[in-house]
Amino acid sequence: MPRNSKRVTSFVVLILLLASIHVYPQNQKFGIVIHGGAGTILKKDMSPEKEKEYTEKLTEALEAGYKILESGGSSLDAVEQAIRIMEDSPLFNAGKGAVFTNAGTNELDASIMDGKTLAAGAVAGIKHVKNPITLARKVMENSPHVMMTGEGAETFAKKQNLEIVDQSYFFTKERWESLQKAKQEEKLKEKHGTVGAVAIDIYGNISAGTSTGGMTNKKWGRVGDSPIIGAGTYANNNTCGVSATGHGEYFIRLGAAKDVSALMEYKGMSLASAAEEVIFKKLTELGGTGGVVALDKDLNVAMIFNTEGMFRGYYLSGCEPVVKIYKE
Amino acid sequence: MPRNSKRVTSFVVLILLLASIHVYPQNQKFGIVIHGGAGTILKKDMSPEKEKEYTEKLTEALEAGYKILESGGSSLDAVEQAIRIMEDSPLFNAGKGAVFTNAGTNELDASIMDGKTLAAGAVAGIKHVKNPITLARKVMENSPHVMMTGEGAETFAKKQNLEIVDQSYFFTKERWESLQKAKQEEKLKEKHGTVGAVAIDIYGNISAGTSTGGMTNKKWGRVGDSPIIGAGTYANNNTCGVSATGHGEYFIRLGAAKDVSALMEYKGMSLASAAEEVIFKKLTELGGTGGVVALDKDLNVAMIFNTEGMFRGYYLSGCEPVVKIYKE
Repeated sequence: MPRNSKRVTSFVVLILLLASIHVYPQNQKFGIVIHGGAGTILKKDMSPEKEKEYTEKLTEALEAGYKILESGGSSLDAVEQAIRIMEDSPLFNAGKGAVFTNAGTNELDASIMDGKTLAAGAVAGIKHVKNPITLARKVMENSPHVMMTGEGAETFAKKQNLEIVDQSYFFTKERWESLQKAKQEEKLKEKHGTVGAVAIDIYGNISAGTSTGGMTNKKWGRVGDSPIIGAGTYANNNTCGVSATGHGEYFIRLGAAKDVSALMEYKGMSLASAAEEVIFKKLTELGGTGGVVALDKDLNVAMIFNTEGMFRGYYLSGCEPVVKIYKE
Repeated sequence: MPRNSKRVTSFVVLILLLASIHVYPQNQKFGIVIHGGAGTILKKDMSPEKEKEYTEKLTEALEAGYKILESGGSSLDAVEQAIRIMEDSPLFNAGKGAVFTNAGTNELDASIMDGKTLAAGAVAGIKHVKNPITLARKVMENSPHVMMTGEGAETFAKKQNLEIVDQSYFFTKERWESLQKAKQEEKLKEKHGTVGAVAIDIYGNISAGTSTGGMTNKKWGRVGDSPIIGAGTYANNNTCGVSATGHGEYFIRLGAAKDVSALMEYKGMSLASAAEEVIFKKLTELGGTGGVVALDKDLNVAMIFNTEGMFRGYYLSGCEPVVKIYKE
């Protein structure tokens, strides 16, 4: 072969190689599913304006996650970003819109998990960090620990240069009035609004995250399922990613998020069957309410809940985003 | 049949009935298995006196639990009592013998679970409660919550009239010196010594509990697996009860305690195979160290660990108590 011809051949091979690298991701499936809490959400109680606000904010979160995934970003980035958008909105019981404790404070919990390595990070009882989901990720990536709580976790947050806010940042009139009402009735109110996201990126890595303000009128440093790995959040590349919302105590007792994965892995169930088994059978029989969003390695989506409604949506590669609120 | 004869027959039937009620429990199997932590525990490093102390204290805990079970008491009582005995001893990293945090304080975690109802209670970051396992049980039985943390949990403890102690109660010279050494070496030291128990009572109810002081030199409000239901503690009458000890972060990521149960329930594995799968395969592959003790509904015992040793023992109905420390 003449020398020039060899060069041309090498050049062509190189071009084909580069093209294949570039094309590879575009052939891969990716997607994100989110929730903004489950509860007694009825169309008759919702004004068209409020419905529009929720739909727009959920769509914004989905689009932000989708954009990251589409450009080859990680599912961890997509989950974190989608949750940050919901945390920054007063619409949901997470971040800015967190409910009030019995003491009139706001105490936030969050967790995140990487399905590739089973690495995880969680924080509970956070009072001054604007985005608890980002703190959970810092715990996962920049500490030897999985879970941090209270003031200790906030000291770590400062070291990580996270945005620290005054407790007044979390004040919203609606949540404050909810507390007064809950106090009058002397009961804990389960305010729907915990947020969560699950995503799979072009590399097949699944991540899941959850963030919440907990229960209105909660006392005694109560912690729900949101910061508990295996209860409120779970991700495993071999099976699926799950984020839960609802009456947290029941989700802890059931180890609900990981149970969806275990039913798939050990019993060979589909994602939908596994999620239905956990929510419609186990959770319901125990007397609990709530739901999960989940996404498996084959890009199947499950959004299962036993309440009147769940703020939810998904956005899969090559499709349009879908956002829903009520049962049907 | 003459009237007297009828009376005699009725009387005999009544006696037999009463006898059967009385005999019933005595025919049932019951038992308890405990651990006092896993780690680098080598015979060459242990004085005969220290070995005797550990053996005697583990035996005392087993006997206290056994006595409760033998007299028809609940597995919850047996688990709580066995753990309280270990919490009150300076030998273990729980209660009195808790290790020190980086700040020179003691912060204790504990959890308990009832396999009959899947009810559970957990506390984290406790500084002034003498017996955290009892507080965990109070959370389970006397609150609507599963998990409480920090000062809030202590406020609840006071309302429940639990014994409150000054932080100085938890001072032991050995643990203090461990902290100084860990600080010099600038590392977290995983001090073996977390305690746990699993029991099954004559009614077939399985309970599990775990209590710890966490890691020497821990910072940032770190919480390990001990107070995480599904990670450090799990119980389910349909399968088994499990209490874990070791490098807690790995046990959280694996949802280790519940995974043993899930492998039995969903894959039909035996208790021993399930516990070995979780410890020898999953935990070891992830790079974690530690172990579990477990007891299933058929009174099979598993005490599986991938470290040099684990303080452990069991005491089953009709048998002698067995206590072990090293690998063989």
